[in-house]
Amino acid sequence: MQNKQLLLAKRPVGMPEKDTWKMETSPIPEPEEGEVLIRQHYISLDPAMRGWMNDAKSYIPPIGIGEVMRAGSVGEVVKSNNHPQYKVGDYLSGWGGVQQYVVTDGKGYFKVDPNLAPLPLYIGTLGMPGMTAYFGILEVGKIREDETVLVSGAAGAVGSIVGQIAKIKGCKVVGIAGGPEKCKYLIDQLGFDGAIDYKNEDVRAGLKRTLPEGIDVYFDNVGGEILDTALSKIRMNARIVICGAISQYNNTTPVKGPSNYLSLLVNRGTMQGMIVFDYADRYMEAAQQMGQWLMEGKLKSKEDIHEGIENFYETFQRLFTGDKMGKLILKVLED
Amino acid sequence: MQNKQLLLAKRPVGMPEKDTWKMETSPIPEPEEGEVLIRQHYISLDPAMRGWMNDAKSYIPPIGIGEVMRAGSVGEVVKSNNHPQYKVGDYLSGWGGVQQYVVTDGKGYFKVDPNLAPLPLYIGTLGMPGMTAYFGILEVGKIREDETVLVSGAAGAVGSIVGQIAKIKGCKVVGIAGGPEKCKYLIDQLGFDGAIDYKNEDVRAGLKRTLPEGIDVYFDNVGGEILDTALSKIRMNARIVICGAISQYNNTTPVKGPSNYLSLLVNRGTMQGMIVFDYADRYMEAAQQMGQWLMEGKLKSKEDIHEGIENFYETFQRLFTGDKMGKLILKVLED
Repeated sequence: MQNKQLLLAKRPVGMPEKDTWKMETSPIPEPEEGEVLIRQHYISLDPAMRGWMNDAKSYIPPIGIGEVMRAGSVGEVVKSNNHPQYKVGDYLSGWGGVQQYVVTDGKGYFKVDPNLAPLPLYIGTLGMPGMTAYFGILEVGKIREDETVLVSGAAGAVGSIVGQIAKIKGCKVVGIAGGPEKCKYLIDQLGFDGAIDYKNEDVRAGLKRTLPEGIDVYFDNVGGEILDTALSKIRMNARIVICGAISQYNNTTPVKGPSNYLSLLVNRGTMQGMIVFDYADRYMEAAQQMGQWLMEGKLKSKEDIHEGIENFYETFQRLFTGDKMGKLILKVLED
Repeated sequence: MQNKQLLLAKRPVGMPEKDTWKMETSPIPEPEEGEVLIRQHYISLDPAMRGWMNDAKSYIPPIGIGEVMRAGSVGEVVKSNNHPQYKVGDYLSGWGGVQQYVVTDGKGYFKVDPNLAPLPLYIGTLGMPGMTAYFGILEVGKIREDETVLVSGAAGAVGSIVGQIAKIKGCKVVGIAGGPEKCKYLIDQLGFDGAIDYKNEDVRAGLKRTLPEGIDVYFDNVGGEILDTALSKIRMNARIVICGAISQYNNTTPVKGPSNYLSLLVNRGTMQGMIVFDYADRYMEAAQQMGQWLMEGKLKSKEDIHEGIENFYETFQRLFTGDKMGKLILKVLED
């Protein structure tokens, strides 16, 4: 048995190409005193990964050239060298990266229970994307009953949870997604009040159709033109949560700034950025609440699971083409 | 005696030209029952006036073609037709517009005392610009002791007060202004810790020189490139107060959106728009505090007073050329 690892080979310009990474096969590492060896089952694919590949100051250091590609993951402890907390058979979620085995002292990992929820959920709705949605819409968006909420990337891992939480809290929710299938899913399966298919409908016209009263809270995962259009339709004291800007991540030209930002002045609006790590001390609270909603059937979680670490590149591309449905996950476990 | 009034003649495109307005002379109006006639002394010139001339949805209706040009003003009651509150000899400040006499029922006006402060101050530091500065930096900027504050338009009516309040509250304050004279004024007269002359120094380099530790609060009066540069230098949890965007008001092309807005995400920053009218119920509190600071010498107020309603156009232009120092005021009273 060997450990397959995906290393960052070079810094991409624009949309990463296949040779951005290289696969290496090495012996399975041995845990030192106080460490565990985790056999990874699933790794998480997130738009934020694109940003971590840039050599730029950001909220975490960039991935170094030659380092394992950073990724959230979940797996099973298969060896423990006197780890004070974790033992063989425990399931842990953390930053295992795109590789099949990882050795860690356990910092940044937390134990999960595969009997309570399927493992992939711990890197999806009960993991970073879910936490991002929870704290983003509640703490930054500060939604109140009867407000209107617009979310972009609405069929994605974060957006789909944002919209459902807003529904649970009594808001009117409209999602922006690409393609009729995703839009139908938002309305029929997730209970959204409306959906705008940005690939087939002018977003401005779509907003007029679905939210003629205007937007109280806009949860932005995409940036670009859609952010600008949303800004032009905000209500008084609106909040705009800046969670991501997937439309801009592969730009080779400067990021498009929101020309309509003066709508914040006219409407006394607030635009605020958020990073989920700031809420780490409250993950447990959120996970418990989300778990309860899942069990009650109030929250639905969809995972789009692909197989094989060899298929990382093709799967990663789906983040940006939108050719996915729900949380994108790669199974790296081999039988 | 006649009443000279300046009417909006057409909607300007870009920088208004002289024929944007036309002067009319008409008989001095008579107050009806419950009204007063005010002989105006001073009118206020503010960048926001440019926005009011556009036929666009905003925080107040646009000025209609043929209507008196909207402006804040201060003057003396010279006739009262049984007004329940105001009598001849009272001084009132309100929205008298660019004209020498105005008749009003008193709504939106408040009484001022020329013995406590010179009349021009009531449309400057003790009027809208002062209130904007006070609530903008304290309520929206939420400054705390030892934070760093950057303010643009720093030698202007709002910016100069913003910076001085931040100094009073124990912040390190840097102002951006145009020209060495204004920058010297900020440091020597107003006690700013630093100044950046954007006409003669690269703002990015100026920030490195004066605020290498980064920006906690940026009070933005100008928008455009300076906003973008400031965004690139914010610290964690920074607040950006969007008060105006004078660099964009005469644009004939779309407003320049801030390309660096994703700095809000990386740094968990907040960008919030404000309109002073929202704080109307607290003007008294602010005016009393500002009056006290003025008397204690902690706050300095500079007025740039020009004479003659005929000179409105030339004076108005100074708002955008920057050829002024402090609060721009036009004396419309004729002896």
